[in-house]
Order: sequence, then C-alpha cells, then structure tokens
Amino acid sequence: MSKVFVLGHKNPDTDSICSAIVYAHLKRELGMDAEAIRLGELNNETLYALEQFKASTPRLVERAASEVEQVILVDHNERQQSINDIDEVQVIEVIDHHRIANFETADPVYFRAEPVGCTTTILLKLYKEHAVTVPAEMAGLMLSAIISDSLLFKSPTCTEQDVQAAKELAEIAGVDAQEYGLAMLKAGADLSNKTLEDLVSLDSKEFEAGGHRFEVAQVNAIDVSEVMNRQKDLEVLIGDIVATKGLDLFVFTVTDILNNNSEAIVLGRRTDIIEGAFGSEVTDNRVLMPGVVSRKKQIVPVITEALS
Amino acid sequence: MSKVFVLGHKNPDTDSICSAIVYAHLKRELGMDAEAIRLGELNNETLYALEQFKASTPRLVERAASEVEQVILVDHNERQQSINDIDEVQVIEVIDHHRIANFETADPVYFRAEPVGCTTTILLKLYKEHAVTVPAEMAGLMLSAIISDSLLFKSPTCTEQDVQAAKELAEIAGVDAQEYGLAMLKAGADLSNKTLEDLVSLDSKEFEAGGHRFEVAQVNAIDVSEVMNRQKDLEVLIGDIVATKGLDLFVFTVTDILNNNSEAIVLGRRTDIIEGAFGSEVTDNRVLMPGVVSRKKQIVPVITEALS
Repeated sequence: MSKVFVLGHKNPDTDSICSAIVYAHLKRELGMDAEAIRLGELNNETLYALEQFKASTPRLVERAASEVEQVILVDHNERQQSINDIDEVQVIEVIDHHRIANFETADPVYFRAEPVGCTTTILLKLYKEHAVTVPAEMAGLMLSAIISDSLLFKSPTCTEQDVQAAKELAEIAGVDAQEYGLAMLKAGADLSNKTLEDLVSLDSKEFEAGGHRFEVAQVNAIDVSEVMNRQKDLEVLIGDIVATKGLDLFVFTVTDILNNNSEAIVLGRRTDIIEGAFGSEVTDNRVLMPGVVSRKKQIVPVITEALS
Repeated sequence: MSKVFVLGHKNPDTDSICSAIVYAHLKRELGMDAEAIRLGELNNETLYALEQFKASTPRLVERAASEVEQVILVDHNERQQSINDIDEVQVIEVIDHHRIANFETADPVYFRAEPVGCTTTILLKLYKEHAVTVPAEMAGLMLSAIISDSLLFKSPTCTEQDVQAAKELAEIAGVDAQEYGLAMLKAGADLSNKTLEDLVSLDSKEFEAGGHRFEVAQVNAIDVSEVMNRQKDLEVLIGDIVATKGLDLFVFTVTDILNNNSEAIVLGRRTDIIEGAFGSEVTDNRVLMPGVVSRKKQIVPVITEALS
C-alpha cells in the first residue's frame, strides 16, 4: 500500500499537529504507511508540547500530489483550510470536530465528526475501537491538544467527553493536567518572539458564508494590552491581507487566557455586522467580547448567521 | 427534551426505513424522544421485512418544521434527497454510508459516514459503543437492510464489515440470512402490482455534478425483459420528469438480481457521456451494463466523473 499523508489545517494549532502525529501512529499500528505532515510553522504552545513528550516535528509539506495519492484530514474538513493541492489527491478519511462545509466527495469516505471540544477526544475513542494501546507520548500529545482547544477546560466548546478523555490521558502520560496545562498555555501566550506578521497569521482561518469570505485570527495572551498597543501597525498588515485576499471581513481576536475574555480588531467592508452580531460597540475598529474565548462556538457561528 | 425526527431519504428503500426505525429505537434507549418517519411509500421488499419482524410502518411526514426543531438524517446527507423543509430545521446528527455532498452546517454536528455497504452496519457499532442490547426485531431490520443494499452480499459495495454484521444479526434475529434474504429480494422484485409511475419513482435519487443535475432510478427484477417491454411508455414518463425537473440526464436502471447485471434506459441532453462512461454502446436509448448492480459504487461516481 502506498503512503498516505495525515494532515491538519493551515496555520496549525496544537490540535492539528498533535492529531496528525497521533492518528498517523494509530494508522501505522493498523498497517497503513501513514506520515503526519504539517502545513505551516509551529506555534510556541505546540513546540512546548512536542518537546515535553519527545515527539518529532512533522515535515512541512506544501503540495501532496507529487508524493501521495491519498490523504487523511484531521481537525478540519473545509477545502480552503487544507493543503493547496487538495483537489489533486483523494481524501480517504476525515476526523474532525468543526462545522461541515465546502466538503464533497465522489465516493463514500470514512467521515467522523463529533461535536466535542477537540479532535484527539475522538482519536482516543478510535484507539479503543481498534483495541490499540495508547503509548505515553501519544497520550501526552492528545492531552495537550484537549488543553489547548478547551483553554484548560474553560471554553464553552469543552464537553464532558473531553474532560473524561483528558483525565484518562493525563494518567497514561503521567502528568498533572492542571499543572502541565497551565505551563503549556503560558508557553503559548509568550508573544515576545513574535513579529506582527506572526500574530495575524499563526492561528488564522478563512470561512465562507452567504457568498462572503471572512477570516478570523486568534492570539492567546496573558496581557491583551501588550498586543493592542500595536493596533496601528496591525491594522496596516490586516488591511493588506483583506485587500490581497479580497476578504469581506477580518476579525483579529486577542484572548485573555487567564480571565477568559477577548478583544478584537475588525476590518473590511462588512464590519457593519459586528455590533449586531456581538451586541458590543465598535470603537476605533475595536470591539470587546466579554466571555468569548472560542472562535468555533462563539465567533464563527455568529458571523456566519449575520452574513447569511 | 423536545421530539427529534429520524429520517432516511426520499423514495425510501429498505435501508432508509429500517435505519430510521432502528436508530430511533437506539436514541430512545439513550433517553431521546426520537420518532422514525418516512418521506415516501414503502416498496414491496421493505413491506416484507417490516412484516417479517413485526415492525410498524413509520409515519409519512412531508414537513418537519411544524412538529420538531431538530432532525437526524440516516442513509443520506445530500439536502435534495432529504425532507423538503430541511433548511428550516437543525440537523443534529448524520449516520450515512454515501458520498458527502451539498451538506453544510453552521455548528459542529455528529456526522458519522463510513464506506461500508449499509447504514445499519454502522448502527450495529453504535449499539455496541453505547452498550445497548439489540432486540431480535431490530436485528432483523438491520439484517434486512444489509441484504437489500448488498443484494445478498453480491454487490461490490458490500464489505467484510457488512458480512460480519449480517452474520451476527442473523443469529440475534434467529433467521438464516441466505434463505430469508432470497425470499425478501424476491418479494421486492415482484413488480406485478407496480404502475409505470411506481417503477420510475420508487427508488430514484437525484444528484449534482459539474453544474449538471441527474437522476438515477433503480428497479430490481427477476426478469429484466418484463420491464423493458414497456420501454416506450417508460420513455414518455421519464421524458416528462426530465422536462419538469429540468434534469440533464435520467438513468433508469433495471437490475437482474439473480445474474447481477443491469440494463438502463437513458434520456436527457447529456446522454452523450453514457457510452464513454460505461464503455457500452447506447442503442435506442438503451445501454447494457454487465456486472453493474450498485448505483452508489458503479453508476453515480462514473457519471459524476464524466459530468465534472
């Protein structure tokens, strides 16, 4: 059997990277020649997790079709978030926990999406269904992804299944979830070595709704004002992205991981929907979003609804 | 919790009806107020299965939104195959074994599609995952669906998982799969009480590819010529459907369930693709398809490819 790539989304976060590594491991255990790849640079949080559990960094790959005929998508299903030449390869499986959109196949596939907080919560089920033992390092990576996606179990996306999976995984990995989790999140919120370009691109995703295209970037921070102090320069950068990509809206979100609030810079010709969508005033292109920490559950559905 | 409808596709076949009944049963066991409904008349094969296992016929429902806010789709995911007011209700789950297309949600859902021969093969897994005992009558319905979709394990869509599931289910149901299966298929292939309208509509599905819309109807028969003797009248009917729905192609397939071949009547402005797609000559609007028994695996992907 020829090689299959396992890949998460562009601008990879901890779930995308860890899910690719972990699912490729499970697939190899089941006899598939699977390689985890990544579509972009690792953030500080993911680097911390990989180092902690001695995992090697997946290879950066920009085009799949020259190396493989088939791919498995984890942590995403929308084509525009996937590898650039996705239309030239066959998607044989999808394991995801996001909304389903812009996905279509000619043949039946294995598509497993569940409304849980993290892809690796589903992956743990798959290890069990196939009766494959979870090695400590894989457990550590799965735990890291759950902590990352759930902001240490505080995001509204976090379900009881995620909490239970994390408990089980922490035991296998031999770490204290709270202690390890806070250290990992803090490593991720260390923005000292980040350029402005990094901030707007590291965890940014593009969406479509009602014929409009919008992008939502998210940065975790301990001190939000540290980022917002650079608003004017950020706006120039974001304005360029909006123009280059022809976006209708860009929402640059900075999330306070200790107090669980967000503040966003919004640009584009459809910023008119923001006040209505979030019930918050937009002043100087900025909007406060009290209690908002989840792009998937608290930002994207609201904007999708407003634009549709 | 308010009521949730569980529904298969339009022009329901045995898998769509049995999956709706069975999954509604599982959901009720798990505490949901779930009701199986159907979107159309039952065929002879399904009637035989329901009678054999003493299951009641699901209620015929044309619009969901006046009764429920949420629905679960089984055995389909494409909106045009679903209940007419699908856009007015929330789809909370999908259990399917078809290609994925024209499906989109604003929020994450439970979406479980697997490339197996029958939806109930997946449902049996779900009973196990939730540790719910399978009652004999539910086992009988699940077995009927597998036999129907796999033409008694002879279709190329049939996987090892379907065969194993059927073995297990036959034991629980207390029937011999081969003997019961042949009797059920023969009941389904009894076309004596069918009008021409029945033949073209009972198991017909609409698809989209490359901006073209096409419909593929399938009838199982013991004697194909019995159906084809009525070709001229069938063509008038099908021509009307093509005109009314504005279809680009209609493929009316008659499948010989004893010898595992099909013959089709093809109409519409894109019949030009048929010869290339199937490598068979079209004469007098008719084409022989040796070895073809599966719409999903041997007809729809080939036409999709040719039209794209």
